[in-house]
Amino acid sequence: MTEKELLILDGHLSEYSYVGGYLPTQADFVLLKSGHIPSDPPHSLPSVRRWAAHMASFSASELEALPQLKDGCKIDEQLSNLVKNNLNMEKKEAPKNAGEQKKGAQNSKGKSGKFVLKTPKGTRDYNPAEMAVRRKVFNTIYSVFHMHGAVEIETPVFELKEVLTGKYGEDSKLIYDLEDQGGEILSLRYDLTVPFARYVAMNKITNIKRYHVARVYRRDNPAMTRGRYREFYQCDFDIAGQYEAMLPDAECVQLVHQVLSKLDLGEYTIKINHRKILDGVFGACGVPAEKFRPICSAVDKLDKSPWEEVRKEMVDEKGLDPSVADTIGEYVKLSGREELIEKLENDERLKGSAAAQAGFADLKLLFEYSKALGCDTYLVFDMGLARGLDYYTGVIYEAVLKAGQEGGEEGTVGSVAGGGRYDQLVGMFDPKKKTVPCVGVSFGIERLFAIQERKDKAQTDKIRATQTEVFVASACKGMLMERLKLLGTLHTAGIKAESSYKNNPKLLNQLQYAEDNGIPMVVLIGESEVQEGVVKVRNTSSREEVTVKRDELTTVIKQRLTVNL
Amino acid sequence: MTEKELLILDGHLSEYSYVGGYLPTQADFVLLKSGHIPSDPPHSLPSVRRWAAHMASFSASELEALPQLKDGCKIDEQLSNLVKNNLNMEKKEAPKNAGEQKKGAQNSKGKSGKFVLKTPKGTRDYNPAEMAVRRKVFNTIYSVFHMHGAVEIETPVFELKEVLTGKYGEDSKLIYDLEDQGGEILSLRYDLTVPFARYVAMNKITNIKRYHVARVYRRDNPAMTRGRYREFYQCDFDIAGQYEAMLPDAECVQLVHQVLSKLDLGEYTIKINHRKILDGVFGACGVPAEKFRPICSAVDKLDKSPWEEVRKEMVDEKGLDPSVADTIGEYVKLSGREELIEKLENDERLKGSAAAQAGFADLKLLFEYSKALGCDTYLVFDMGLARGLDYYTGVIYEAVLKAGQEGGEEGTVGSVAGGGRYDQLVGMFDPKKKTVPCVGVSFGIERLFAIQERKDKAQTDKIRATQTEVFVASACKGMLMERLKLLGTLHTAGIKAESSYKNNPKLLNQLQYAEDNGIPMVVLIGESEVQEGVVKVRNTSSREEVTVKRDELTTVIKQRLTVNL
Repeated sequence: MTEKELLILDGHLSEYSYVGGYLPTQADFVLLKSGHIPSDPPHSLPSVRRWAAHMASFSASELEALPQLKDGCKIDEQLSNLVKNNLNMEKKEAPKNAGEQKKGAQNSKGKSGKFVLKTPKGTRDYNPAEMAVRRKVFNTIYSVFHMHGAVEIETPVFELKEVLTGKYGEDSKLIYDLEDQGGEILSLRYDLTVPFARYVAMNKITNIKRYHVARVYRRDNPAMTRGRYREFYQCDFDIAGQYEAMLPDAECVQLVHQVLSKLDLGEYTIKINHRKILDGVFGACGVPAEKFRPICSAVDKLDKSPWEEVRKEMVDEKGLDPSVADTIGEYVKLSGREELIEKLENDERLKGSAAAQAGFADLKLLFEYSKALGCDTYLVFDMGLARGLDYYTGVIYEAVLKAGQEGGEEGTVGSVAGGGRYDQLVGMFDPKKKTVPCVGVSFGIERLFAIQERKDKAQTDKIRATQTEVFVASACKGMLMERLKLLGTLHTAGIKAESSYKNNPKLLNQLQYAEDNGIPMVVLIGESEVQEGVVKVRNTSSREEVTVKRDELTTVIKQRLTVNL
Repeated sequence: MTEKELLILDGHLSEYSYVGGYLPTQADFVLLKSGHIPSDPPHSLPSVRRWAAHMASFSASELEALPQLKDGCKIDEQLSNLVKNNLNMEKKEAPKNAGEQKKGAQNSKGKSGKFVLKTPKGTRDYNPAEMAVRRKVFNTIYSVFHMHGAVEIETPVFELKEVLTGKYGEDSKLIYDLEDQGGEILSLRYDLTVPFARYVAMNKITNIKRYHVARVYRRDNPAMTRGRYREFYQCDFDIAGQYEAMLPDAECVQLVHQVLSKLDLGEYTIKINHRKILDGVFGACGVPAEKFRPICSAVDKLDKSPWEEVRKEMVDEKGLDPSVADTIGEYVKLSGREELIEKLENDERLKGSAAAQAGFADLKLLFEYSKALGCDTYLVFDMGLARGLDYYTGVIYEAVLKAGQEGGEEGTVGSVAGGGRYDQLVGMFDPKKKTVPCVGVSFGIERLFAIQERKDKAQTDKIRATQTEVFVASACKGMLMERLKLLGTLHTAGIKAESSYKNNPKLLNQLQYAEDNGIPMVVLIGESEVQEGVVKVRNTSSREEVTVKRDELTTVIKQRLTVNL
């Protein structure tokens, strides 16, 4: 099977438990023995991994007895052809004995039909090693948030459906609804920005600088192999309040720079633009006002598609005059720094646009403030940056990691943070339309996790999933109660300590466990140590051992931990 | 209005936006001007608070123009009577001018109908001060989890519906289902234990010690004033694996003790019992085997109801012979320690019960191990402890704070943690029914938050919602760029620093801000300081000021922070 075919299979198995749908069939068996599936499939194929692990639980006779793949089974055409063509299914599937086959089918249906061992489509579990990476990334980001005096809030995972209605444009179809079980009509949150605006309006807050890190839900077609899921973390920092122009905006840009520099995941630039500049350009080029948002949404695709395609969308789909599109094309390909702003301020078409001029004034201030804050060198004024969401009203920005750094992603330039100013959203929730101006940034945290994970794997010092400092081991039999007493003593002193759950574990196994799990110290007891009221403290990496009195043990351990830190 | 009536109103407003349903009516106006609602309703009435804040946004003329409360409006009978009786609604609601009234109604319906400013029933937002308390409690608990070498995992917020089916008995009706939007049928998780068992089975894990802290969902009738919500945190620690009897169980009990002692929220005991002992008692007393679980579930109510009511449930609802119930009553009121175990081991009825004897042997071991671990004095063997869930198979435990400590809750003895052994749950997910024995504990974290909050409020040192260390202030105009430069310098050195968003903030306001927010230091600049290349560093509490050279600033600040810590 080609890599692409494996990806198709993985996508299928992300929705279905088995090749043939929700029940195991001969199709699974055939695929299994075809040799096309690696015995330990790569982590980039999580659903194939899940399937392979699950199939390994069937005995040979159970596999033989699986029912045929029937036409009624849920299997999409692409995969069906793939299975048939690659594996000569039809030949192998001919039943030897119809009666026997049927019996087997019933058995395995009755039995295996119950065990749909998978997570919902577009979601996944996170194992301890992955969680350790996440905690590390989160803690770095939190430390920067705290640097700015931000506070934390939390909102429910679902909102009244009408809170979300009319906020996301076309994407509203991706909202997860809860079943109407009598009562309110609810939907899972789609992002953290709309709940934040609802929170600010509901509590009549006039100013707040808050962060919120939580999972959001989108019924998108998941591209899980590229790290895109239906359930994923967002990590938002926003400043609400009526303040001096561009000061909170500059702080957001500074914060993006601080997070990315602290995470140390490679070189990055922060692209900036302004919705008023885009509107000014559209107006000056002759775009009718009602087409501003659709054309803006077309420009947004410039980071993924070439200009020709974007132009085609403008002209063919959105009915823009080709010459107008061409004029827009002249502008959106521009990028630079302050000198570009100055040039465009005097541009013949834009001179008369109040919107564009207001945008230029803002960006000049942003450059000035960024210089004082020490992050201006990361800024690029990119006229092609548009940002997808409708609610932005002012400055917009997006941080991208420079190409060729992410390893394996063939030079993709990855967007890892984005945001902007949205001054009208809170007003949409206020009965009197009273609004609170806001500006904020959202980190593409799942992408940052993935990059951090690759970075950690490339380095030798792997992240430990536990924090255990001491392993309590025994050199001979009958030491269980002594080990428990030591655990009690160490824990009371605040020292992280584990021991074996076996009554009489083997010494070598215990030392090996400490080594495998990176536990820096072993406290070792045998009969003579107990009699003499001492223990041995062993350094796991140097294997050096010292004898310590029981009542000095916690002091010694703490000293050693401090020295090592 | 009586306190009880206010509670009914709060319950109503937790589901509906307004007194009359989803639209504002004269009923809201009448209630507002009745004087029955305090201008700043207590936090124990969150929905009344939300409603009062929202109503304050209506102008007098808008209130006058609100439509009448119609019969079709959603208002439950109890509240309707309450409103009518207490507030003489009918008299006041007579329209003066039908035409005007109608116009007003349409306007406000068209306008206010959009703004349902509330969170879904049974849920709430958490503000920064509340989040700070949560972080503090979580961090304490995490530190104990790490003490035991536990790893963290994460699972999706929803599962395939069939994963949850058949695990919760009667409570299954409380599961939140997602709408069938084509694709898989999904439900929000009801607890963290079933997803954990699914995770262990799906990944063929033979042993793991993991914690998982996340929110779970139950469509229960929320008693929000008593801190019970439909969306709430669970905080679980579980040990899966085939180990020496009672060693992981003793570790769980020890961990409960460690968490509660570290949180320091008052005296507590850990009640223990064993499902096999309960089954042994039921068998010996003559309960038919098929009634073991229903009778166990009745015993579970003993912590909330007197024996007479529990007996009534056994006899009237569950058809138990009254004399059998009476015999059970003799046992379930017993509590004690090792001596009770020894006594019961030789009890005439229980002598012959293999189940009960196995349970006694386990508990004896548990006492012995707890002694070595230093937490046996907190244990009480309580024959009336049953735990609600069906899946427990061995030792069960529950930690309760002693009565009269929680302040305001009239001596309620609060359960703050509970758990036990469940050896068969993983097997329910394995195609071959292969199981992995598990034991675990879940902390009643929402209750712990509430108690911690009360404790913090009672103390003078309030928890800060931010961690800011330095406030950068200016003594005169035109210092904005200098302040930004200082922020850049301080942040680069890893110091948490904020400044005003105003171009020219007043000095006194800046110093006041630092004081109000508990920011320990202020860095102060004026024209002369800039000229001389120095700053003033001011201690917020002592108000003492020293002059420091710009290039020594971060060193000085760091020293002062270290000294204060």
